[in-house]
Amino acid sequence: MKKKDVGIVKTEYFTFKNFTLENGKILPEVTIAYETYGKLNDKKTNAVLITHAFTGNAHCAGYHEGDEKPGWWNMLVGPGKAFNTDKYFIICSNVLGGCAGSTGPSSINPATGIEYGTDFPAITISDMVRAQKKLVEFFGIEKLLCVAGGSMGGMQVLQWVMDYPEYIYSAIPIAITLKSTPQQIAFNEVGRQSIMGDVAWKKGHYYGGPEPDKGLAVARMLGHITYMSDYSMQKKFPVKNPELNENFDFNADFEVEEYLRYRGSSFVKRFDANSYLYLSKAMDYFDVQKDNFLPEEKNLNIKFLVISFKSDWLYPPYQSENIVKQLKAKGQEVTYCNIYSTYGHDAFLLEVKDETNLIRNFIDNLYKEVFEGGK
Amino acid sequence: MKKKDVGIVKTEYFTFKNFTLENGKILPEVTIAYETYGKLNDKKTNAVLITHAFTGNAHCAGYHEGDEKPGWWNMLVGPGKAFNTDKYFIICSNVLGGCAGSTGPSSINPATGIEYGTDFPAITISDMVRAQKKLVEFFGIEKLLCVAGGSMGGMQVLQWVMDYPEYIYSAIPIAITLKSTPQQIAFNEVGRQSIMGDVAWKKGHYYGGPEPDKGLAVARMLGHITYMSDYSMQKKFPVKNPELNENFDFNADFEVEEYLRYRGSSFVKRFDANSYLYLSKAMDYFDVQKDNFLPEEKNLNIKFLVISFKSDWLYPPYQSENIVKQLKAKGQEVTYCNIYSTYGHDAFLLEVKDETNLIRNFIDNLYKEVFEGGK
Repeated sequence: MKKKDVGIVKTEYFTFKNFTLENGKILPEVTIAYETYGKLNDKKTNAVLITHAFTGNAHCAGYHEGDEKPGWWNMLVGPGKAFNTDKYFIICSNVLGGCAGSTGPSSINPATGIEYGTDFPAITISDMVRAQKKLVEFFGIEKLLCVAGGSMGGMQVLQWVMDYPEYIYSAIPIAITLKSTPQQIAFNEVGRQSIMGDVAWKKGHYYGGPEPDKGLAVARMLGHITYMSDYSMQKKFPVKNPELNENFDFNADFEVEEYLRYRGSSFVKRFDANSYLYLSKAMDYFDVQKDNFLPEEKNLNIKFLVISFKSDWLYPPYQSENIVKQLKAKGQEVTYCNIYSTYGHDAFLLEVKDETNLIRNFIDNLYKEVFEGGK
Repeated sequence: MKKKDVGIVKTEYFTFKNFTLENGKILPEVTIAYETYGKLNDKKTNAVLITHAFTGNAHCAGYHEGDEKPGWWNMLVGPGKAFNTDKYFIICSNVLGGCAGSTGPSSINPATGIEYGTDFPAITISDMVRAQKKLVEFFGIEKLLCVAGGSMGGMQVLQWVMDYPEYIYSAIPIAITLKSTPQQIAFNEVGRQSIMGDVAWKKGHYYGGPEPDKGLAVARMLGHITYMSDYSMQKKFPVKNPELNENFDFNADFEVEEYLRYRGSSFVKRFDANSYLYLSKAMDYFDVQKDNFLPEEKNLNIKFLVISFKSDWLYPPYQSENIVKQLKAKGQEVTYCNIYSTYGHDAFLLEVKDETNLIRNFIDNLYKEVFEGGK
């Protein structure tokens, strides 16, 4: 099968009014940025929703006009790929609270005419999912063939299972947990403290002036470490010790320092510090375990493909195993694979071959079974 | 055997002139803060040097007048304890570059009459050890019975082995590596960027004015996460999700956030941000592997006790196993124990019972063998 890209794509926008959040607050207007690839069939049975990670966006495949780099999951989304755009209609949207086209703290607050900043209400993974559902309904889709995503995208997948089980045929949660652990919350909190400790942050009302770039860069540098593994860092930076400095001169002596500084400084150009605060808080509060994950009375009939990665220490495999155990205990049909990888948490973006084999077959078989009467 | 404390102790100071550093620079005057416990015997054969971790100090046992909390290794240092002060003379000194009495960036630069700040020269683990050796010689000790320490203390132990092998009978490196890895360097670099990104840092010349407390607190918060384990954090903070906030109000919602903030804010009261920079750089440069650890021509006769902890992911057991392999390959006598612990890297401060059994027997047997003609 020939593997090519989806080509030139562009981000679209979907807007709706008076969106009530989990905490009771109402956003008067919400815009959700999204992209689609492939064609929705006449019966609207071939729609797959892809959910993105913490700092991701709606642009998961193809190229924007003039761009050299494709979308963040381009290796998995396209003709003949894991998410096969020859057969399926793929939707990917930027989350509520984000800063890549969807309504978030850097959007204009209609009540004041200036950016929300920290007047933006707290949002949850459930709020993100409810906004996504409005987008899916806008397409006239009555049931999604699949919802799939890694990391914070996996949280959204599990939240879809909890909140709208009758609305999905299948779910692919990747490299994720049923509930944020203290360690995960702690890493997020260090990032937040770094942002909020930056004098430029000004309690979140920094728009139009200098932005808390230093604090945000440090948060991102830390994030990067947690996305890689001890081993993958050693492979990427075979530590050749630099010459000893005469004085401590504040430069990056080691390659890994230079790399992290670069990742930090390029991140601040594309990401809003307040979105970092809001989305990380949403992740901290994520907990589908508290509601007794998959109550039996819901009588689910969802097929699951659960994927984790051996070297992922941010969302370690035991957390995916917990998802599998809970699903199995409720009699659900689950395929689980703990993929051998040395990439750490980032593996969900990098282990293309294994993910392709698993995901393509899973979705193809499901589609045949549900709509074509057999595997 | 009755286990009591060494009682009330106080820090002493040892000063010497014109200390040449590894990079060729000369410190005109160096003071080393130290404490001792137990009695040096007439032949001066019973001296044990304890080396401290990153943010430690010379006060490893007993109580300072009026203090409620004892020294940082009090559980292991005292009458009948792992480091038995009934039998041995224990020396512990604050490292060069530190901020607990020894010369460091917060000391007065004799050339200017004000604090060195970042005019302080870069220092290495080897420099720390060479300063310690001067202190040991000041006591008239010709050979140390043992050098022991965990984390950065373990680096000093291995550096003693490299630099002064004829000067020690035994070495106990705990929870450490032969060479800093990119991940370890990366965590240090995030801490440094956080400090240097604080407007109060002023390129290191902040003394007498506001100090970079916010940046230093963030660095410490991150440090704390790396010293614990995923499991120990779950045990310490059984995450009961708080009520969802209406707005994002910057408070600590989760117990773990509150804990980290507390640890950060109490740390800045006792530690100097520039010392954080200098000591973390010294750790980054640590590499006894590059010099072909234990060159055979040195014809060593040192006994080793190497200790690691199963849940330590900052200095994982495989790094201690590397130390053991290298020692074995050079025909050295090594006892190795990978202690079962869920505490993470902090285990070297907490796994008192196992460490006591290992260390006390190791030192007692050694002393008998060397000085009393048998085990």
